[in-house]
Amino acid sequence: MSRAYSDMTLPIEKVFRDPVHNYIHVEHQVILDLIDSKEFQRLRRIKQLGTTSFTFHGAEHSRFSHSLGVYEITRRICNIFKRNFPIEDNPENGWDDSERLVALCAALLHDIGHGPYSHTFENIFDTNHEELTTAIMTSPESEVYQILARVEADFPEKVASVIAKTYPNQQVVQMISSQIDADRMDYLLRDAYFTGTEYGTFDLTRILRVIRPDKHGIAFQMSGMHAVEDYIVSRYQMYMQVYFHPVSRGMEVILDHLLKYGKKLYAKQPDYFERTSILLVPFLNGRFTLSDYLKLDDGVLNSYFTLWSEYDDPILSDLAKRFLNRKPFKSVTFDASTKEVLPVLKEIIAKVGFNAEVYTAVNSSYDLPYDFYRPEQEKFRTQIELIQKDGTLIELAQASDLVAALAGQGHGDQRFYFPKEMLGQADTPAITLFEDDLTYFNSYIKNGAIQLTKN
Amino acid sequence: MSRAYSDMTLPIEKVFRDPVHNYIHVEHQVILDLIDSKEFQRLRRIKQLGTTSFTFHGAEHSRFSHSLGVYEITRRICNIFKRNFPIEDNPENGWDDSERLVALCAALLHDIGHGPYSHTFENIFDTNHEELTTAIMTSPESEVYQILARVEADFPEKVASVIAKTYPNQQVVQMISSQIDADRMDYLLRDAYFTGTEYGTFDLTRILRVIRPDKHGIAFQMSGMHAVEDYIVSRYQMYMQVYFHPVSRGMEVILDHLLKYGKKLYAKQPDYFERTSILLVPFLNGRFTLSDYLKLDDGVLNSYFTLWSEYDDPILSDLAKRFLNRKPFKSVTFDASTKEVLPVLKEIIAKVGFNAEVYTAVNSSYDLPYDFYRPEQEKFRTQIELIQKDGTLIELAQASDLVAALAGQGHGDQRFYFPKEMLGQADTPAITLFEDDLTYFNSYIKNGAIQLTKN
Amino acid sequence: MSRAYSDMTLPIEKVFRDPVHNYIHVEHQVILDLIDSKEFQRLRRIKQLGTTSFTFHGAEHSRFSHSLGVYEITRRICNIFKRNFPIEDNPENGWDDSERLVALCAALLHDIGHGPYSHTFENIFDTNHEELTTAIMTSPESEVYQILARVEADFPEKVASVIAKTYPNQQVVQMISSQIDADRMDYLLRDAYFTGTEYGTFDLTRILRVIRPDKHGIAFQMSGMHAVEDYIVSRYQMYMQVYFHPVSRGMEVILDHLLKYGKKLYAKQPDYFERTSILLVPFLNGRFTLSDYLKLDDGVLNSYFTLWSEYDDPILSDLAKRFLNRKPFKSVTFDASTKEVLPVLKEIIAKVGFNAEVYTAVNSSYDLPYDFYRPEQEKFRTQIELIQKDGTLIELAQASDLVAALAGQGHGDQRFYFPKEMLGQADTPAITLFEDDLTYFNSYIKNGAIQLTKN
Amino acid sequence: MSRAYSDMTLPIEKVFRDPVHNYIHVEHQVILDLIDSKEFQRLRRIKQLGTTSFTFHGAEHSRFSHSLGVYEITRRICNIFKRNFPIEDNPENGWDDSERLVALCAALLHDIGHGPYSHTFENIFDTNHEELTTAIMTSPESEVYQILARVEADFPEKVASVIAKTYPNQQVVQMISSQIDADRMDYLLRDAYFTGTEYGTFDLTRILRVIRPDKHGIAFQMSGMHAVEDYIVSRYQMYMQVYFHPVSRGMEVILDHLLKYGKKLYAKQPDYFERTSILLVPFLNGRFTLSDYLKLDDGVLNSYFTLWSEYDDPILSDLAKRFLNRKPFKSVTFDASTKEVLPVLKEIIAKVGFNAEVYTAVNSSYDLPYDFYRPEQEKFRTQIELIQKDGTLIELAQASDLVAALAGQGHGDQRFYFPKEMLGQADTPAITLFEDDLTYFNSYIKNGAIQLTKN
Repeated sequence: MSRAYSDMTLPIEKVFRDPVHNYIHVEHQVILDLIDSKEFQRLRRIKQLGTTSFTFHGAEHSRFSHSLGVYEITRRICNIFKRNFPIEDNPENGWDDSERLVALCAALLHDIGHGPYSHTFENIFDTNHEELTTAIMTSPESEVYQILARVEADFPEKVASVIAKTYPNQQVVQMISSQIDADRMDYLLRDAYFTGTEYGTFDLTRILRVIRPDKHGIAFQMSGMHAVEDYIVSRYQMYMQVYFHPVSRGMEVILDHLLKYGKKLYAKQPDYFERTSILLVPFLNGRFTLSDYLKLDDGVLNSYFTLWSEYDDPILSDLAKRFLNRKPFKSVTFDASTKEVLPVLKEIIAKVGFNAEVYTAVNSSYDLPYDFYRPEQEKFRTQIELIQKDGTLIELAQASDLVAALAGQGHGDQRFYFPKEMLGQADTPAITLFEDDLTYFNSYIKNGAIQLTKN
Repeated sequence: MSRAYSDMTLPIEKVFRDPVHNYIHVEHQVILDLIDSKEFQRLRRIKQLGTTSFTFHGAEHSRFSHSLGVYEITRRICNIFKRNFPIEDNPENGWDDSERLVALCAALLHDIGHGPYSHTFENIFDTNHEELTTAIMTSPESEVYQILARVEADFPEKVASVIAKTYPNQQVVQMISSQIDADRMDYLLRDAYFTGTEYGTFDLTRILRVIRPDKHGIAFQMSGMHAVEDYIVSRYQMYMQVYFHPVSRGMEVILDHLLKYGKKLYAKQPDYFERTSILLVPFLNGRFTLSDYLKLDDGVLNSYFTLWSEYDDPILSDLAKRFLNRKPFKSVTFDASTKEVLPVLKEIIAKVGFNAEVYTAVNSSYDLPYDFYRPEQEKFRTQIELIQKDGTLIELAQASDLVAALAGQGHGDQRFYFPKEMLGQADTPAITLFEDDLTYFNSYIKNGAIQLTKN
Repeated sequence: MSRAYSDMTLPIEKVFRDPVHNYIHVEHQVILDLIDSKEFQRLRRIKQLGTTSFTFHGAEHSRFSHSLGVYEITRRICNIFKRNFPIEDNPENGWDDSERLVALCAALLHDIGHGPYSHTFENIFDTNHEELTTAIMTSPESEVYQILARVEADFPEKVASVIAKTYPNQQVVQMISSQIDADRMDYLLRDAYFTGTEYGTFDLTRILRVIRPDKHGIAFQMSGMHAVEDYIVSRYQMYMQVYFHPVSRGMEVILDHLLKYGKKLYAKQPDYFERTSILLVPFLNGRFTLSDYLKLDDGVLNSYFTLWSEYDDPILSDLAKRFLNRKPFKSVTFDASTKEVLPVLKEIIAKVGFNAEVYTAVNSSYDLPYDFYRPEQEKFRTQIELIQKDGTLIELAQASDLVAALAGQGHGDQRFYFPKEMLGQADTPAITLFEDDLTYFNSYIKNGAIQLTKN
Repeated sequence: MSRAYSDMTLPIEKVFRDPVHNYIHVEHQVILDLIDSKEFQRLRRIKQLGTTSFTFHGAEHSRFSHSLGVYEITRRICNIFKRNFPIEDNPENGWDDSERLVALCAALLHDIGHGPYSHTFENIFDTNHEELTTAIMTSPESEVYQILARVEADFPEKVASVIAKTYPNQQVVQMISSQIDADRMDYLLRDAYFTGTEYGTFDLTRILRVIRPDKHGIAFQMSGMHAVEDYIVSRYQMYMQVYFHPVSRGMEVILDHLLKYGKKLYAKQPDYFERTSILLVPFLNGRFTLSDYLKLDDGVLNSYFTLWSEYDDPILSDLAKRFLNRKPFKSVTFDASTKEVLPVLKEIIAKVGFNAEVYTAVNSSYDLPYDFYRPEQEKFRTQIELIQKDGTLIELAQASDLVAALAGQGHGDQRFYFPKEMLGQADTPAITLFEDDLTYFNSYIKNGAIQLTKN
């Protein structure tokens, strides 16, 4: 019976129209059932890029569409591997197509544990989207688990182990999670499409022509070096220009302080939150279950912020309004040599009347979980390998000057965030009172960065 | 002072990256302030296409991005009119560029009164997005009003009158609202982009090359006839294939019944709703203010549905789950000749155990507010006029066989909606019990339509 | 041996990068050899759209790239048919994949008989590209023949019979040649891409999802009706706006008259042409062989025109210059009711000093060999059929108002061509002398058409 | 009068549909006249990328369309400069719009001196496309000169001096010719479009947003650093993957040897060439005039090759056939350390029976005139400068790791070319005789490169 289920294919292939991949093709009943599960449908209500849509208004796409995209790329890789490199003909390096279903399920579900504004939320409420992904796959109460378990009793664990990278077949693992995997390839193309930028565009078709299985995982034919190189550069450009955009981070720090402040206030005024913010309470009080988690989405948080914006705690209300109405904090960059100015700036900000704890922030893009290519620093990263005509492998950065230039060092910046009012542009009498303070504050800023000496 | 404000232009033009128009260019301080207003920012939280994203998963874009797009097309038309057809050179038919600001504001704000799932919501709760658009523009408490009033005391009314089509300059009115206006041009292109279909694609650049002001409004040079024709065909294709998609409508009828049922239940159990659905209560009890309305968005409704899906009223809970987890009703078409079968089908549905009032629906696409080109039937529609070399005008359908074929008659269909379970595919014991009923039900269906005689 | 050759597939699939289809995939040695043949390589030197590139400067693509495109679409259709509708499972309507090679070869070679500016050239020199296609396939001296004959002795005849539509398997025939075939689908998309227009764009991916084999040929699933409808509309738009463009036709009539005049002059002054126009002589004297034909291409004709433009026959030289330097004849439309004015106009043109035979022309777009959808008029056209859920067929125009509006009647126009000088814009003294004549001439023209009564 | 001509603008702006820039807009009568000149129309008959279309079959576009594109980008830059940085407001760094016409003419005509297969042709026949560009602009017999001279007597010289970079206004010079100019921006985008690759795609709109005039020429706002960086990377990718493609170079060396051999043969057998190759004779005998040069185009050369391919000199005929029928030489890379093997390989090739002088070649991509970013090596290159908020300038490579990685060093390779027959794949008896020689030859090749030690 479970065998039968894993082999059940749809009489007519089902497709989902997709702006990035044209069509997403579903052939297995298992995949269709997973898409129809309530845990997966919930991803429709969680934006892929969180606060980025405050900067790039087109980027309102959900984790649902990204997950379908990762599935589709994985499916295409499996097709190519099956056609060109079957294990039957390549016993050492070939692809065993009986791995297809586990790969497809892992691809589809790799983000199933994400919640609203994940990276901010989990810092504050101690949730962890990777653990939650595993939990959803392996908890008997989830529909996802029930579907996976119909395939085979240990299938949920298998799929979870792909995400955890402990699955024995490294081809499957690296398809879903490596420096150049279906996940990254989809999000770069998708985020580029929806933001309307072109930096993330690389030649997926060509990469799929040169990808091939290898006994240690995934590799690329030497002839495709420039295509892989181009992907790495696109990735870099997307991080620099989209993911690390200072304005989106200026909204993210507001969200972060708003949730933190709400959590603190809950300790003092639980009644208010228990009345208005029902679905958030388990997180405010630290006693949440998987079921509680699965009720959250972007809309739940936003609808509580709408209520909070009318509450009579002035800070909670002000931060909620700034978030809902898109009033990002402004920022300047700093580095080790100018870090010492931060306390001075905070002091001025406090003097003007802001709670400096709540109204300033330091945001370092290196800390953001969209990771970057740094093989030396993080040993677990699998290298990208190129296969020469005679079968020997070369590591990508050895073959590409461009990749070598980007490899092994962090890119990004550190920014100090503060209220826009400090720039003295806000045309309010309250600010005018502090004109000297503002002038003093701005004397520390030059070309968008903190400087040591006042102008 | 107000004069000054209307003339205030940004020292450096501000742009918003847009996937459809590449960049949205903002030159006036007024426009920037309107975009920053809380009423306008709220449009970020309202999807442009409502339940369509359940069918086309890419279509998650908001009314915010559409509104920017309409503004941008209007701005481009103003530029073209100013450069090529200024009133100074064309006293009879030319464009008076002092009308630019009122046109831009009306374009930007034309949808400001929309709420979550507008068309469904307003049927049930007696809100009206057009009246609300006017209300937002002209109510002293709104930020939008305050910005518009800074331009001139009667400027809010002026902008509102453009939307109401009573503004004297019909060039401005028709730019925003006519058979081929900035609104329609943006949504066709935008919806095509985000759904990933190509039907809505037409040649905007070429249309902008042939558009020109006329003393009675807007017209098009004869040489652009095929470009206008192509726009009309694209519009038709989008309605037939995207806006009237049976599955999206199968979600819409669920939403409709869910809200109606909730409203009815509120009468009996107000406590439950007052506890869980704070922001919706003013609508459930029919005593809402503009301020109440402005707190609603898609996320507010969805977060209440999440709570409702756990309530112990089985119908409320079931409908909420069907909506959240995307379990659309199925449908068949019918017409005047087969309408008589509907009571029979409802009876079978009731026999199987469904409340037929709640679990069936008739949806006619002609009723959907995405209107269609039918000049004979609705007199107020302004025709599309083509200008010949010698200055005489021709109505579009006179010049185009294709448009003539589409003009003057409704397109779409009428569908009867019912639970998927009636098709007998759901693999549950409960349904198996009613096998004969299901067979009887399906005997009335052939090629997706109701038939009179049983098979 | 021949068997072996037909089965020989490349160890690694070869691809050609293509802007329209992304990649052209070659799997058979036979196909690669055909592409490498000198007759096929010659297509690189023949423009797909002839004089159209004088109007749309991007349209400089060759018959070589179009031929690859037709091959690629055919290959994709075969793949779909093989996967979804194999004859093994569908004995009545299914696809027999042993027909693949004949289909691919016919697709690749369907235009192999085309020469430079085919449609003009063959009118004058009595060549016929369809007969020449057959001749190239079946003449022992051609490389194409030698390759095809290696497959099987009668394979050249088989492939030729597909082009002639006499091949027994009508699925193969209709794939290459029907109202909606790989040929038309490629040229619409390709010509739209290279001209930079969007009219020709339709949803190829979707059409390939709904195409299916039928016992009588090719049909489309009912669910794809709108996609097929959209293709028909795109086709119509391309004809109206690109293929029938008056300026391209204004160059075509010059070319036509230039070649005709050259042929006439040859009779009187054979020496001149035998000295300068070596490769054209067999056509000027009507004694050409297949080998002579295969030496022609666009560049050959153009290089003779360069020489002719310096010859001392003033008409030959003037026409050659007009063609090389793009000085199209101008035109006005006329119809049955205004045809009587033509002799009057010619008389004025003669009076002004032009040889009216050479310097005027009538061009009717209906006569142009880019054919159009007119089932009633030309019985041999196979209809486009849609398959309903229960298997019954419907003819497309029965299901689509748009197609019905276009079907069964010619679209296009008739134009009278004459020298630009007649419009009196040329700023030369010679013309100024005839001012009254020009005024008289122009009094017969209104809104781009001939009128009966003078203005 | 001349004044009047320079100011004459078209009553209605004329447009050319362009697949890359959508529309080319022509506003000046001067520009329209230049486009209509016979010297400019001739560019329609010269491919932009020469032998590249043998590898990327879509790349059949002409220098005509590229020239229009360069004009259009220049026009857009002028518009931006005029609107945002007029000299009236920025006396030090601003743009003087009276320079527009000279800039537009220089942009349009910058390639007017190119002939067929320029880079190969001019090596052999001592033509120089830059000198010829100047000659065409300043020779009284050319139509281009006559048009330019109508503007002002010294206008032809002015335009020519822009091309020569001696024009005093460096803003104009750098718009047309610098590391990031309208020429390079157009050809990258255009070549990417027509080849169907995506490497050349960069964000033109964004670059046009950050470009600005500077007293020393052209600079870019700091905020656009990544857009400029992306352009540099795209440029690098196009060179590596398209312009330096080994197969195109394998055709180019054949062309080179064919023309050289023809020239040598002419010395011995002038009669043959004087009879068949009329338009080429002035170049074969080294006594050509500008008028002779202007009669050449790709088609002229190809039509002579067609004749040559039947001549009884076996080498001339064989090379002509290889070129017409696309039989590229094959190649392997080598470097300083393996250069010593070349004489050995040539010897084997000669032993097999090929004239090693004619049938082998060394091609170094560094020598190709598509230049590359190497500021240290070639001092005359103007650097790309970024403008910081406070007005100070930074050189691009100082701000970009990626550009720094590419700067200052050559990229490309050196290849040794030889007949495909040497690889032993050609299935001919003649080759089979030399099996040992071929084996020996191939023992020097590994992973596509020459190796010192035999395998």
